[in-house]
Amino acid sequence: MPQLDFFYFIGSTYTYLSVMRIDEVARRAGVTVNWRPFNGRGVMTEHPFHGKPVKCAYMWRDVERRATRLGIGWNGVPPYPIERPNLPNRIAVAAAREGWAPEYSKAAYRAWFSAHKNLEDEKALSEVLASIGKDPAAVIALANSEDIRQLFASETEAARMLGIFGAPTFAVGKEIFWGDDRMEEAIEWATRETQEKSQ
Amino acid sequence: MPQLDFFYFIGSTYTYLSVMRIDEVARRAGVTVNWRPFNGRGVMTEHPFHGKPVKCAYMWRDVERRATRLGIGWNGVPPYPIERPNLPNRIAVAAAREGWAPEYSKAAYRAWFSAHKNLEDEKALSEVLASIGKDPAAVIALANSEDIRQLFASETEAARMLGIFGAPTFAVGKEIFWGDDRMEEAIEWATRETQEKSQ
Repeated sequence: MPQLDFFYFIGSTYTYLSVMRIDEVARRAGVTVNWRPFNGRGVMTEHPFHGKPVKCAYMWRDVERRATRLGIGWNGVPPYPIERPNLPNRIAVAAAREGWAPEYSKAAYRAWFSAHKNLEDEKALSEVLASIGKDPAAVIALANSEDIRQLFASETEAARMLGIFGAPTFAVGKEIFWGDDRMEEAIEWATRETQEKSQ
Repeated sequence: MPQLDFFYFIGSTYTYLSVMRIDEVARRAGVTVNWRPFNGRGVMTEHPFHGKPVKCAYMWRDVERRATRLGIGWNGVPPYPIERPNLPNRIAVAAAREGWAPEYSKAAYRAWFSAHKNLEDEKALSEVLASIGKDPAAVIALANSEDIRQLFASETEAARMLGIFGAPTFAVGKEIFWGDDRMEEAIEWATRETQEKSQ
């Protein structure tokens, strides 16, 4: 089965579009997605929008149009930026290790984009976790463990070694595709690679 | 007939993809394209690739993949950046005023991307102009005139007023779409706007 690595970062705005639709797009194409949360800020060579109001205004309009076009919910501009994104992302790392990253990541983005919750807030994160049937205190303790901190760092280093500089990025082996708008191209690539190997 | 303003800048790498395919994509959709060359560097809030080797390497790989996927020629990375892009762009402004911007812009990008000519070079530009049946000396004199310099500046200001910060950008009235990957979305928008007005 073709494989795709989905490198994402809770805090990235365009990642909202990818988190909400990648399962369905990949399922239709018969591609398995490996959800790999990483520290997107840790690999950025620049902040894409900070101090750039014109570009930032465009980004929100673009996300709005694309969310609408792709049939994903849109409820106006949510709280932004997430100043301290490490905890929600370490929870994603713990979730990925245990196999429930898609469920958690979608619930977190819905809380952020639809309910306008601030994901810096442990209470908001606890509500997200409870909504998908997890024990908030246990998960947050795990997300704060040395194990998960190290896994978050090593996944970020893996992303950097692939030449990743932003989120979301889709990787098929060493071939990387940056941005939600490259999802379909990455999925096609994964499918073709597998066909060529099996010939 | 639906209208689309195509703001482009000879010097932008992704603009290659748009220049080579917009006529065909727009024709199929029944949309009229207004070719509007402007000073892309003049509106940029940052250089997207200068001093960012990882992002720059990705950009070239991405352009290569997309050129291949879209059926546009690819002959390896061309000379980059164009340090002094004003003359080739002022020629485009003159060409747009006279109605031959598509022909010239495609020939200029082919010279740059396929033949690896340096478009800073007046000799290379003269060859481009001769290849499309224009008198190089007369066109270059026109491109250096005060008239065309002013038109270049006012088109750049028009782009800035629309909130444009990079090239290529497609505009449908005040709605802007940045990047070759948004071409289809912009064309759809133009078509829908016209349908709504006629209802």
